[in-house]
Amino acid sequence: MIRGTTSLIAHIGFPTFAFKAPMIYNPYFEQAGIDAVVVPMGCQTADYPGFLRAVFTLTNIRGALITMPHKVTTTGLVDAVSPTARIAGACNAVRLGADGRLEGDMFDGEGFVRGVLRKGFALQGRRALVVGSGGVGCAIAASLAAAGIGAISLFDRHAESAEALGARLRTHYPALEVYTGSNDPAGHDLVVNATPMGMDEGDPLPLDIARLSPDTFVGEVVMKTEMTAFLRAAAARGCRVQVGSDMLFEQIPAYLEYFGLPTTTADVLRSVARLHY
Amino acid sequence: MIRGTTSLIAHIGFPTFAFKAPMIYNPYFEQAGIDAVVVPMGCQTADYPGFLRAVFTLTNIRGALITMPHKVTTTGLVDAVSPTARIAGACNAVRLGADGRLEGDMFDGEGFVRGVLRKGFALQGRRALVVGSGGVGCAIAASLAAAGIGAISLFDRHAESAEALGARLRTHYPALEVYTGSNDPAGHDLVVNATPMGMDEGDPLPLDIARLSPDTFVGEVVMKTEMTAFLRAAAARGCRVQVGSDMLFEQIPAYLEYFGLPTTTADVLRSVARLHY
Repeated sequence: MIRGTTSLIAHIGFPTFAFKAPMIYNPYFEQAGIDAVVVPMGCQTADYPGFLRAVFTLTNIRGALITMPHKVTTTGLVDAVSPTARIAGACNAVRLGADGRLEGDMFDGEGFVRGVLRKGFALQGRRALVVGSGGVGCAIAASLAAAGIGAISLFDRHAESAEALGARLRTHYPALEVYTGSNDPAGHDLVVNATPMGMDEGDPLPLDIARLSPDTFVGEVVMKTEMTAFLRAAAARGCRVQVGSDMLFEQIPAYLEYFGLPTTTADVLRSVARLHY
Repeated sequence: MIRGTTSLIAHIGFPTFAFKAPMIYNPYFEQAGIDAVVVPMGCQTADYPGFLRAVFTLTNIRGALITMPHKVTTTGLVDAVSPTARIAGACNAVRLGADGRLEGDMFDGEGFVRGVLRKGFALQGRRALVVGSGGVGCAIAASLAAAGIGAISLFDRHAESAEALGARLRTHYPALEVYTGSNDPAGHDLVVNATPMGMDEGDPLPLDIARLSPDTFVGEVVMKTEMTAFLRAAAARGCRVQVGSDMLFEQIPAYLEYFGLPTTTADVLRSVARLHY
């Protein structure tokens, strides 16, 4: 129950109607007896820089979840950006640092990585293909690099997006092998669809499934359905897979830690979430 | 349950730990199926002007409940102040007007008046004594004037406070009889303790109880206990009385109407409130 002692996590974006975080975090806080609440705050682009600063003057603000359309601009509005957020080119989390400065981080990719690790798939030294170098592709690539992946292949139908991401990765991780220009899954231990392909029924697959080895671990970011056509095709070839919503649930413990709140597992969060009502 | 469509009522003040509104409004919203939530927002004096403007840029803000220490300064921060708030010299409610301007109002006195009226005590043309010309005394006097009281006597141990309030009342209500300088309850139909006397056990009574007629209706603002020593003494003389917390519960329907939300009664609010936990 919200009371005078409750601390706030501002969930800032626009529009707000499709926000899912309040229905995952708040039931967890209630069940775990944590005196905090996620509050949706609809904020348009012109108002966002002022509002972000203002909301962090509150004495009971614990942090902010940043979503569309503000993830990219946040990197220029906070005082310190984590390496992962810098490579991703976007922040989805903001907190007040001990020194009073606003700090930004990005947990989309961290959610993907935690999901893969929890499934027992080691990343150290492995070879990954990330198809799509938009916001989520950049975030996943940044977190894979942070997790110690050995080589990463990047592909985007806008070649310059993949090239730019590759350059940022090389700058921050000089030992990482970075390749761009091909979406051929052959020879990769991990393959990720980080494009929107799969949102619509008739979408083509993001890569040539016939070139996918059964040993490859396959991840997805589309969460419109659990098993997208791409994941179904990969599973049919014998690949282990990770569904899109794992990225959502697996990143919440990372957020909780970042905000200094008692953490939990993605499984607990799935069990308490009230996404269907 | 808070979701992406939920609209916000910002409860702004500092410190926040003793806030009661979330535990009254939110259980009512839940029970009535109203998709809104009261959120405590701790805001210190230096940050308040900026935060008040910023929070009203949110697309899902419905209004703000303003409490200590910001009630007085709010009158200078909004674009339009109601007559009642102007006489009271303070606002405890802010909303966005249809023209995009911030509007301020004051419902402390309205809560007191609604409570008296609901107890069947008519105010039109009656004579009232308000002891105490601080924030709540000014608010009650302003709302009594708006409700059509015929004459009002004002007393404060700081005589200039009562004089200043009297001057504001005379300006806005030229037909109202205004007296200052005495706390003698004789000859009044309604007598209100709007001082903090009664907060502590050993406090003297705010006026000479022996001069109180059994026909006089007696109201209280102290809500530390329901029946204060003053109310007990008045009831012992045969007076009808109104407890301090009636002002709190009776003003909430006024707030709900002001924010354009479905309204209810003070009795329903009392029945759903979760103030003890």
